[in-house]
Amino acid sequence: MTRHLSRAGQLKIACIQMEPRIGDIEGNRASGLALIEAAAQQGAALMVLPELCNSGYVFADREEAAGLAEQIPDGPTCQQWLAIAARRGVYIVAGIAERDGACLYNAAVVIGPQGYIGKYRKLHLWNHEKLFFTPGDLGVPVFDTPIGRLGVAVCYDGWFPEVYRLAALQGAELICVPTNWVPMSGQLDGHEPMAITLTMAAAHSNAMFIACADRVGIERGQAFIGKSLIVDCSGWPVAGPASEDSEAVIYAEIDLSEAGRKRQLNDYNQLLTDRRSDVYGVFRSD
Amino acid sequence: MTRHLSRAGQLKIACIQMEPRIGDIEGNRASGLALIEAAAQQGAALMVLPELCNSGYVFADREEAAGLAEQIPDGPTCQQWLAIAARRGVYIVAGIAERDGACLYNAAVVIGPQGYIGKYRKLHLWNHEKLFFTPGDLGVPVFDTPIGRLGVAVCYDGWFPEVYRLAALQGAELICVPTNWVPMSGQLDGHEPMAITLTMAAAHSNAMFIACADRVGIERGQAFIGKSLIVDCSGWPVAGPASEDSEAVIYAEIDLSEAGRKRQLNDYNQLLTDRRSDVYGVFRSD
Repeated sequence: MTRHLSRAGQLKIACIQMEPRIGDIEGNRASGLALIEAAAQQGAALMVLPELCNSGYVFADREEAAGLAEQIPDGPTCQQWLAIAARRGVYIVAGIAERDGACLYNAAVVIGPQGYIGKYRKLHLWNHEKLFFTPGDLGVPVFDTPIGRLGVAVCYDGWFPEVYRLAALQGAELICVPTNWVPMSGQLDGHEPMAITLTMAAAHSNAMFIACADRVGIERGQAFIGKSLIVDCSGWPVAGPASEDSEAVIYAEIDLSEAGRKRQLNDYNQLLTDRRSDVYGVFRSD
Repeated sequence: MTRHLSRAGQLKIACIQMEPRIGDIEGNRASGLALIEAAAQQGAALMVLPELCNSGYVFADREEAAGLAEQIPDGPTCQQWLAIAARRGVYIVAGIAERDGACLYNAAVVIGPQGYIGKYRKLHLWNHEKLFFTPGDLGVPVFDTPIGRLGVAVCYDGWFPEVYRLAALQGAELICVPTNWVPMSGQLDGHEPMAITLTMAAAHSNAMFIACADRVGIERGQAFIGKSLIVDCSGWPVAGPASEDSEAVIYAEIDLSEAGRKRQLNDYNQLLTDRRSDVYGVFRSD
């Protein structure tokens, strides 16, 4: 299996922090493609784009959301992502408003140079999303690709340690997180947002890389916080946090072979094998 | 049920950061009692002491560990903690080397003014602990006390999100963490230790308070990192992190009624009820 590696063991990845405009499908698609092109020119083999980067986030009502959503992979945004992935030989994980029959999903697609790989549907809906979207029904899928085993989570999914754990137990080496993080109450001045704390903790506890691509801007009064980042499988940032208010592309060269059961803390401890699944049985009845 | 509250809804708690000396049972017991007495004088109703605060941490061999371990609650250290808890009307959660027949456990006791409440045995053993101790066999117990529903975790247990989650699902409002944190590889200069990141993330994700009492000092070449802290149920520190190298007692007044299912993020989201237990079923087969 050929991995797209810039040098032995190294995979260059990019998180594309952008500002989608609500309802401007053509403009959002063009902005995203330009940033994908720029990241490809920088040698990135995998790029992550924000949640709902085709549509914008703050829908006035369900009808607006439905009008902006697309089929996966037959819709025009997916088709353009497929085309650029094939032309540039890159992988793309991007958030997209999905329409499937009568249902709308806050989804993400995984696309490679050879074509469509799969999709994820956000499991944990945030705030007014519950008015527009159907909760994800595809579980926590992990995609085995030539560049590594990839998982996907979207924004508020990252508040649930189970999501990362389920991906890790399936051997995921890198979780791609299209997100639209918003300010949260309780945030302390001078500290990075809690989203970053959660990301670092999940990466460390699961010995996995995590790449979060956030959006910026204020949309219909809703602010977003930027701060896209890439953390390595020890939990520490290797790129970002990016700006809180400007578009930016951040890059990191990572070695996915360091992740998972290969990450040994000392002669006696390995985070995944040290789990007490005999005890966690309580999960079975909750 | 009477709660020990300094004013409406407020419970004053203390984390006692101290430096046990390996093998000095009498000296460790005296130091701990003096600090408990000082915290009681400051009005603390609950105090947390470090992991293995009766014995020290770096045992030369299993025989040394066995010689320092005590029975719970009949051993002399427990008996002195019971006496001071009754005399001062306080709660104590403290780490202790436990001997039970042929087995040794890295344990913690929960003691109140009315007497012995229960114990916890560390589930996830770190490094050479595996040479001395039997892994915990009491699951993740939660103790219903007049001051609130308390859980316990010890040091490396905090690396496993399942521990906090299992306690939260049983209604725990405050997790007391006797710990002996050591430096970890990968730590970035200028950042607080990963232990703090994990603690904040767990408190936020589970809407629970967490109080960590660490030790300081260097014992037989092993350094400990101090940085005891108390985080509230939004995940942010309300006391500490304390010094990295000096004994200290940190205090916070907290309101446990804010924890758990009462912590609403917005009109649509609550962290415990938003869980997708229908999806997490994969845990059942791991």
